[in-house]
Amino acid sequence: MCPQPNESISIELQQLQLDADGRNERTQWLLNSPEPPSFCNELINSVSETVLPQKNNFFPSNSKQCKAGVFSFLQGLFPILSWGRNYKANMFKHDLLAGLTLASLCIPQSIGYANLANLEPQYGLFHELAIGPVAVVSLLLSAMVTNIVDPAVDPIAYTSFVFTVTFFAGTFQAAFGLLRLGFLVDFLSHAAIVGFMGGAAIIIGLQQLKSLIGISHFTNKTDVVSVLRAVFRSFHDEALSPMNFILGCSFLIFILVTRFIGKRNKKLFWLPAIAPLLSVIVATLMVYLTKADQHGVKIVKHFKGGLNPSSIHQLQFNGPHLGQVTKIGLICGLVALTEAIAVGRSFASMKGYHLDGNKEMVAMGFMNIVGSLTSCYTATGSFSRTAVNFSAGCETVVSNIVMAITVFISLELLTKLLYYTPLAILASVILSALPGLIDINEAYHIWKVDKMDFIVCIGAFSGVLFVSVEIGLLIAVGISFARIILDTIRASTEVQGRLPGTLDTFCDITQYPGATSTSGILIIRINSGSLCFANSTSIRERVMKLVTHTNGNEENTKENVHFVVLDMSNVMSVDTSGIVMLEELHRELVSQNIPLTIANPRLRVINKMKTAKCFDKLGKGWIFLTIGDAVDACLSLKIADPSSTNC
Amino acid sequence: MCPQPNESISIELQQLQLDADGRNERTQWLLNSPEPPSFCNELINSVSETVLPQKNNFFPSNSKQCKAGVFSFLQGLFPILSWGRNYKANMFKHDLLAGLTLASLCIPQSIGYANLANLEPQYGLFHELAIGPVAVVSLLLSAMVTNIVDPAVDPIAYTSFVFTVTFFAGTFQAAFGLLRLGFLVDFLSHAAIVGFMGGAAIIIGLQQLKSLIGISHFTNKTDVVSVLRAVFRSFHDEALSPMNFILGCSFLIFILVTRFIGKRNKKLFWLPAIAPLLSVIVATLMVYLTKADQHGVKIVKHFKGGLNPSSIHQLQFNGPHLGQVTKIGLICGLVALTEAIAVGRSFASMKGYHLDGNKEMVAMGFMNIVGSLTSCYTATGSFSRTAVNFSAGCETVVSNIVMAITVFISLELLTKLLYYTPLAILASVILSALPGLIDINEAYHIWKVDKMDFIVCIGAFSGVLFVSVEIGLLIAVGISFARIILDTIRASTEVQGRLPGTLDTFCDITQYPGATSTSGILIIRINSGSLCFANSTSIRERVMKLVTHTNGNEENTKENVHFVVLDMSNVMSVDTSGIVMLEELHRELVSQNIPLTIANPRLRVINKMKTAKCFDKLGKGWIFLTIGDAVDACLSLKIADPSSTNC
Repeated sequence: MCPQPNESISIELQQLQLDADGRNERTQWLLNSPEPPSFCNELINSVSETVLPQKNNFFPSNSKQCKAGVFSFLQGLFPILSWGRNYKANMFKHDLLAGLTLASLCIPQSIGYANLANLEPQYGLFHELAIGPVAVVSLLLSAMVTNIVDPAVDPIAYTSFVFTVTFFAGTFQAAFGLLRLGFLVDFLSHAAIVGFMGGAAIIIGLQQLKSLIGISHFTNKTDVVSVLRAVFRSFHDEALSPMNFILGCSFLIFILVTRFIGKRNKKLFWLPAIAPLLSVIVATLMVYLTKADQHGVKIVKHFKGGLNPSSIHQLQFNGPHLGQVTKIGLICGLVALTEAIAVGRSFASMKGYHLDGNKEMVAMGFMNIVGSLTSCYTATGSFSRTAVNFSAGCETVVSNIVMAITVFISLELLTKLLYYTPLAILASVILSALPGLIDINEAYHIWKVDKMDFIVCIGAFSGVLFVSVEIGLLIAVGISFARIILDTIRASTEVQGRLPGTLDTFCDITQYPGATSTSGILIIRINSGSLCFANSTSIRERVMKLVTHTNGNEENTKENVHFVVLDMSNVMSVDTSGIVMLEELHRELVSQNIPLTIANPRLRVINKMKTAKCFDKLGKGWIFLTIGDAVDACLSLKIADPSSTNC
Repeated sequence: MCPQPNESISIELQQLQLDADGRNERTQWLLNSPEPPSFCNELINSVSETVLPQKNNFFPSNSKQCKAGVFSFLQGLFPILSWGRNYKANMFKHDLLAGLTLASLCIPQSIGYANLANLEPQYGLFHELAIGPVAVVSLLLSAMVTNIVDPAVDPIAYTSFVFTVTFFAGTFQAAFGLLRLGFLVDFLSHAAIVGFMGGAAIIIGLQQLKSLIGISHFTNKTDVVSVLRAVFRSFHDEALSPMNFILGCSFLIFILVTRFIGKRNKKLFWLPAIAPLLSVIVATLMVYLTKADQHGVKIVKHFKGGLNPSSIHQLQFNGPHLGQVTKIGLICGLVALTEAIAVGRSFASMKGYHLDGNKEMVAMGFMNIVGSLTSCYTATGSFSRTAVNFSAGCETVVSNIVMAITVFISLELLTKLLYYTPLAILASVILSALPGLIDINEAYHIWKVDKMDFIVCIGAFSGVLFVSVEIGLLIAVGISFARIILDTIRASTEVQGRLPGTLDTFCDITQYPGATSTSGILIIRINSGSLCFANSTSIRERVMKLVTHTNGNEENTKENVHFVVLDMSNVMSVDTSGIVMLEELHRELVSQNIPLTIANPRLRVINKMKTAKCFDKLGKGWIFLTIGDAVDACLSLKIADPSSTNC
């Protein structure tokens, strides 16, 4: 039954022929891949993919689609259209409650933040429609605008610069949203935000020492060293009233205790939310009744009630500082967006709805532009408020409207009262919000998982702490990008082997010790997404070293390398340096009588190689779709020409 | 013969069981991959890999190895040890000829370059051991040091700054070489060098207008606009002698004609090589005999003969400009290295020998340090000289020694003569060398192959041309790195399908239109080497859009997506943002009742996911080694629970 030797060889040859046919066919697929699009087409596609959300829906084909499109566009702009039709009285009860709770948290917080931004307190309250000023943006704004003009010297110029910055921040936000550049927000990585927030929280806390101790001459700088030096100097130079400190600390303890109670007993969630307002009212009344402001307790003093006045005339679009103001606007806008979108995303994933980052950016941008025209400074989404709003049981955006009305009423009625609010209370309200910003657990998790991310985190943290807020941001973004570049530069190669029990599965022999290499064939995978100027030389050297090393080591077993298979499946892009490198590698290997085989180049790489006429130099016969095909082809060559094993 | 239905089912189930066993085994390999090395180990390995060339050879195990190691180390430092033993009289004849030819090219070129660097001409000649000053470094040096001190105002301070810069350049070069940071040279990509050289050549040519026309008041700036303005101003303000121009142009034409002849007739290679020296001698004699220097022809004038004086006392390591000088030293050192290594590589690949970039860097660094102490300014390998040396038939480095001796003799004897050398001749010598630096063909090739590389090229070119040399370099490096980052940010995803006629080969369905997708299973490959903060959000959105899109489109065929297979074989590294993204994607898909399956994560990714406890969240059963395994597992689940097709 068993075939004669001759027959067996002929069957084997037939089989080889069949295999070769399959290989050739697959190589043809590879080489005859779709033609590359022209440069212009590629550019247009790339831009339109970025700018237009859904290409197909942009030019609707019929009027019905068109109507639906317009309605969904309007819904996107005015969400009331989508929920307004189903709104019920029962829902209003929830929203009213949530709105009032929110207002009681927001009023003291916002006044505090305005203080942090070196602005008069009413500017914090003007901005309470849905979102409001947050600590980090306030700090950033005051730190950067102070470099242009000192608020103690020229408060009017300072305020107008702040509005101009807000205007630019809004313009940038809206522009980024309209151009669908939402990905810009991702430049601040998770690790960078953790570090930045931690550092900012400490800086913000230190700034509060001014009000808490009642210092008159403070520093404009934000770094730890300057602030602590200013504090110690004031102990020597100024006659400080201990009243400020006692007042601030006792209310801080009160707020923290209510928060602890609220956490233990979920039903009392409103207690920590109204505690700040309660503190402000009680403390203000105390100061007003005891006339403590005449005995060293610092109070707000400046407070102008009434609705937002227009601030169009305060915007400055000329003058020598325009460049700087634009830059600050860009930075503040991006940081505000980052915070808003981080908050939005965490609540979206909690509540299971989808958040369109670009739409959020447009909305926030227009809000800030309008804000800058009506005496509001840069605002953004705040985590603590959104959290309170949710836990207070809000149903729709009506809760925010309720809150806004409450704030407006306070602006009208409480003007007199807020005049006497002690600064120490505002400091304690802000201080009570800070522990949530410092996330040591997350920093530890980052350290465990990714040391490089931890360096980003620490870089942002210490940059903010010891230099300045914007340097901290720059360090974080810089390290993050340096890491991407470093990953590309330090591209590695790995030797692949066939997994036992599989036909065509080749894997890293370090990762899978069971993988076996085929004798005489060195399979090397390039471990980099891009084969470019930064890594092409080192990859060529690594490949040559692997070849020399293998040939040197296994001299005894007479199993030298006769073929090199270069697996390019990971290489997504190649530049001219990379192509030159491939040609050089080919030349170098051929001079050692080792043919270079290329397996699985990607579409973009094939197109580049075609234009560079690289295939002509390497030889079209040496390019295969899979490693398996390449290995089979090499083996059949070895069988056909056994002398090659001796070369 | 055919089995009963029941039997057939049982066989099928058995087969399924076998398949599942294989899958499970492979998944176990995947999950039980080697433990990640500790952070310290990884750091030490990474540093030692960069710093130590061959780890195994560093600590030799026996005395014989040790002896051989020391000898090869000495050979590396003093190559004469390797070729000196086989040197023959016949070889010296060749070397003598090559050395003399080289000297005749180098003397006029070096004096010209020293002039370009705003130094007295002898400084160019002092440095002629093996390599010498080149145009680009001379230009860079003069452009940057002129910003510190104007050579017209304080030539002594200028010269001492140049030596100090040379010292720092040498120190940086040696340090980079010793730390094996040779890859730093790759930061200037091929495209950047083409653009930079082209721009520098034009700038250098424009600088020569000063000598060629005989302008007395020129500009210190290097950009096209300033130089042309200075030239036109001089036409108005100065009484220019046409003699300079006529002299320069006629000898330029002479040099170019000899080059043309040399190219046509390979035997006359020495003609273009000695043409510059011939021109200098003839022109100098003409000026000396006709006393043309008293009739408006500008001559060198300052020339101090003799051997190199020591310049240790001229180095300045304190003073307010130290930081700037260090920076200039770094830039000049890197540019000099880039040029030298580019030259070295092209000749190495031509002649088929291997070039160790790090060793070259150490050698060049020490040479420049010694040079800075002996009145030499930053030197590097020059393409034109190396080419002449090779075509003159040099055998060993002896040809360079011959050249050096010739130069020293000229320094002693020709002092008087060189005093009368007209500046216009030096300009024409430099101008004749420039066309080789402008490589329009290569620029066109870059445009054809890679548009982004072309932008790098044009950026470097126009930066050098319109702003300054260092800005041109910065632009080129900046764009090159921005491109790496952009590639990572614009990471894409592609839908994979099974190739017909293969068992386990899945490919991009755009690249291979023949690939067929499995119904109900969406296979998505992440097209990026790194899954990080910069692209994780966009990848998540792309995956979700693909799922929604497929579900939306194929509603008619009732073939909704039931499983998503995420092929991670391209992802070489992941950071905390990437891991958070995977968890979010999992949560989002599960909420739509679609399990997320991960195929072929790499070793580094697996280790990160293990530390982040990501497997616990995703479920270990949903991770497979190959796409094929993942698809089979999904299919068997679908068979086992047909109701899932209706979910």
